[in-house]
Amino acid sequence: MSEERAVQQVLAKYVRGADARDGAAVAALFTDAGRVEISYNSSGKLEPLGELVGREAIAGAVSNMMQPHPARGWSHHTTQDHIIEVDGDKATIDAQFVVFEVRGKERPATGWPEGAFGAQGTVTPVESGYYRPVLRRVDGMWKIDTLRIVMNIPLAFPGQ
Amino acid sequence: MSEERAVQQVLAKYVRGADARDGAAVAALFTDAGRVEISYNSSGKLEPLGELVGREAIAGAVSNMMQPHPARGWSHHTTQDHIIEVDGDKATIDAQFVVFEVRGKERPATGWPEGAFGAQGTVTPVESGYYRPVLRRVDGMWKIDTLRIVMNIPLAFPGQ
Amino acid sequence: MSEERAVQQVLAKYVRGADARDGAAVAALFTDAGRVEISYNSSGKLEPLGELVGREAIAGAVSNMMQPHPARGWSHHTTQDHIIEVDGDKATIDAQFVVFEVRGKERPATGWPEGAFGAQGTVTPVESGYYRPVLRRVDGMWKIDTLRIVMNIPLAFPGQ
Repeated sequence: MSEERAVQQVLAKYVRGADARDGAAVAALFTDAGRVEISYNSSGKLEPLGELVGREAIAGAVSNMMQPHPARGWSHHTTQDHIIEVDGDKATIDAQFVVFEVRGKERPATGWPEGAFGAQGTVTPVESGYYRPVLRRVDGMWKIDTLRIVMNIPLAFPGQ
Repeated sequence: MSEERAVQQVLAKYVRGADARDGAAVAALFTDAGRVEISYNSSGKLEPLGELVGREAIAGAVSNMMQPHPARGWSHHTTQDHIIEVDGDKATIDAQFVVFEVRGKERPATGWPEGAFGAQGTVTPVESGYYRPVLRRVDGMWKIDTLRIVMNIPLAFPGQ
Repeated sequence: MSEERAVQQVLAKYVRGADARDGAAVAALFTDAGRVEISYNSSGKLEPLGELVGREAIAGAVSNMMQPHPARGWSHHTTQDHIIEVDGDKATIDAQFVVFEVRGKERPATGWPEGAFGAQGTVTPVESGYYRPVLRRVDGMWKIDTLRIVMNIPLAFPGQ
């Protein structure tokens, strides 16, 4: 497998962990000193939104800052159009991301209504931006040193 | 071309065939004993939805179970964040998918209304989930042995 | 880096330039004789919509034919499921694309309302189709010779 693909698959595992709300799985993709820096791209001007330092903080944020899925709910953090540069044991990715919120309808006890055909529920894009991770190869494994997340939509947190 | 990319392009051709409702093109991507297993991910619990065994059944399902596009209609089965493992003549993919339904507006005989600018129609995400194909290299060509489709949205079929 | 990935990253840079409305950055990805051919896929039948010939025309179209982003607005031209063929100094891509329009809400002077959580704004898919660029390697760099854009949604332009 090429180094570029190995690097890209780290990001593929990151989004799997985010969608499963699996803080431990996400944190394991980072180096010991791993960090996440979140900012908001306000029409081209970056405003810092927050920072997570260390695996424990990252794991906690995935579990606590991301809302749990409701019944028949799921999400898809998807990434596209990766620009990857590998330089020895260091690598960078610039990827677009779009987050979809998935909500399935509950099947009525009497079955789906007459004429219902295909998917019963909604898939809604709710967030987008850029993931710009910097990775380092540690003992032959690519790990995220710093994940820069640039949101294109402002974020509200309780109490702000 | 790397084996990983060759494997990934089989899935890229699968989604082209699905969008064109071209059962023969889709079936040709499978081995003789090819099968499709569809299940619904109900908040983490997999419920089997159906199974197609053999190229003929797969071709028939693409032509008959997928609704034809209406006038000015199309679809995009898109995939993202592939995790690919190649081991000799066997390979697996784990990919996210989002299906978009595309409906163009009909251009009025008198032309688009004043002030209309850009795309005239709708692009709506309607389905999502994971494609998890297992592939085998047969006479130098990667073919799908089993395609596991995990829907994140429940499916209704007539009479169920 | 494989030739296929180098080719794919040209398209990744193209969508970055389109989203930034950066005509010069987009034009620089084309050969001197570069051209863009846009057509509309009306249920399988291709209708020509327009043509841009030369870097200057391409740069102008990105700046003038694409509407500027409003305040707190952005776009994501995303591509998926690339089928890439490299033959010496020539290459072709067939990629799906979906364009998302991003609109952030304005944060009230008094802060986000009570109970607001997460992304505040909308991400809306508005266009889709296929990018089918033909590329050529010039002095070791892959450049786009002809970019065929197949829209799946009709386009309205002022005065048509």
